[in-house]
Amino acid sequence: MASTNIDLALVQSFVDKHRTTSRPIVLVTSGGTTVPLEKNTVRFIDNFSTGQRGAASVEYFLERNYIVLFFHRLSSTLPYQRHLKSIFDESQSEQSYHLDQYHKFQASLLLIPFQTVTDYLTGLEQLCSLLKSFKRSALIYACAAVSDYYIPNDELTEHKIPSGQNELIIRLKPVPKLLGSIKGEYAPEAFVVSFKLETDEKILEEKCLQSADKYNQDVIIGNMLKTRANQVRIYERSDKLWTTINRMPEKEIEYQIIELLSEKHRIYQMHMN
Amino acid sequence: MASTNIDLALVQSFVDKHRTTSRPIVLVTSGGTTVPLEKNTVRFIDNFSTGQRGAASVEYFLERNYIVLFFHRLSSTLPYQRHLKSIFDESQSEQSYHLDQYHKFQASLLLIPFQTVTDYLTGLEQLCSLLKSFKRSALIYACAAVSDYYIPNDELTEHKIPSGQNELIIRLKPVPKLLGSIKGEYAPEAFVVSFKLETDEKILEEKCLQSADKYNQDVIIGNMLKTRANQVRIYERSDKLWTTINRMPEKEIEYQIIELLSEKHRIYQMHMN
Repeated sequence: MASTNIDLALVQSFVDKHRTTSRPIVLVTSGGTTVPLEKNTVRFIDNFSTGQRGAASVEYFLERNYIVLFFHRLSSTLPYQRHLKSIFDESQSEQSYHLDQYHKFQASLLLIPFQTVTDYLTGLEQLCSLLKSFKRSALIYACAAVSDYYIPNDELTEHKIPSGQNELIIRLKPVPKLLGSIKGEYAPEAFVVSFKLETDEKILEEKCLQSADKYNQDVIIGNMLKTRANQVRIYERSDKLWTTINRMPEKEIEYQIIELLSEKHRIYQMHMN
Repeated sequence: MASTNIDLALVQSFVDKHRTTSRPIVLVTSGGTTVPLEKNTVRFIDNFSTGQRGAASVEYFLERNYIVLFFHRLSSTLPYQRHLKSIFDESQSEQSYHLDQYHKFQASLLLIPFQTVTDYLTGLEQLCSLLKSFKRSALIYACAAVSDYYIPNDELTEHKIPSGQNELIIRLKPVPKLLGSIKGEYAPEAFVVSFKLETDEKILEEKCLQSADKYNQDVIIGNMLKTRANQVRIYERSDKLWTTINRMPEKEIEYQIIELLSEKHRIYQMHMN
């Protein structure tokens, strides 16, 4: 499990190619980050995240004319690809529709993989900084499940933790919170959206408000682990407004989330740009 | 990340269907097990394992006339499927060959997924016990990367570990070692092969010998994290014999591993069956 480095020249040239258009640009982060427990990594802590929400959102952003940087966990769900059946599934129909959609939008989509939480943090700063010059046309849509705790590199053991001990104690430090640095430093004018996933409904709203206070996102989307495909609670910091979205039949909930966000972002761009 | 239960009736009927033939049967375990850190699992510890070795081995076992139970980590590499390109890759040729191979062998292959280390341990006992009646015709090929430490269910917290603490300390207990129970209890006459993965070359041989002493496998395959696709060291307990396999050009190393093992297993079946 090697760490990944972003090919910044490639990203820069992709971004530059689209700079002259008036289209909005979105950075979608997706999937879980890993926390290596050894330098020669055999064991790592992972966050539950299929990357399904990020991959679905990318498709709806593309349909709404966005240019998309998809910063995703290596091997997590990919847009379009997610609809394709496995060879163990006999029905291969409908695949051509999604393949056509991919070909239609592929020039507007750049895939950028990450693996460890350290890769993610480095990449987030680099990519947001690249989007700074897009000012209010940039949207940062952070739905990656970022680890809260990790082992800093200088505290990692070199080799695989030996088996056969009576107990294994792992000491983790808090991961630096870079979310606040997006509005504070990397891309101050970007429209910033982040997600908050909880398993205890009672604390969801409070956690969203605490996060908004701390990191200054424009929008926070709260969701529960068990119902995240069917309901989200959206908080807009400027208006202190809560909106609940319930999934409509025959549409993924990401369709409605992106519909609402792209409208909010359109209005946001009309002010002082 | 729900835990998985094996559909034992399905496995039983698959096994029964092949019982009358004189073909050998192999249980291949593959991929890493997870260790949930919460009951409503958001975070878990994972082992690095793509499942590549297990998936490749399945194909070579099928070519050597084995019936295969593939007990694999959900979403890990699948036989045949692993050769198929993503839609992001433009070259779609050669796919039909692998699809044909799959269709040729699919009646001899059963896919059984697992997720957590607890699922794995329960399933290993159930599946080995099902193979007991195959006596010396059964081969257990354990290449799953099983967690060494876990949090027992009664020590798990209900909800997501809160962020924002200065330090997080995780206490893990050793996972019960069931490998020894295969020869000792579940399927005493089966030919048992297991893998030992290390990152420190100096201790690899010693670790294999210790494992053989403890768990009575017939064959132990030692491999290094960095060179595991190019070299393995194979130890046969009965003859105290080491064999080194270096990958040949244009063949996966699993081809040679299965060639050697199926020959050893053939000889093993000739004795006292």
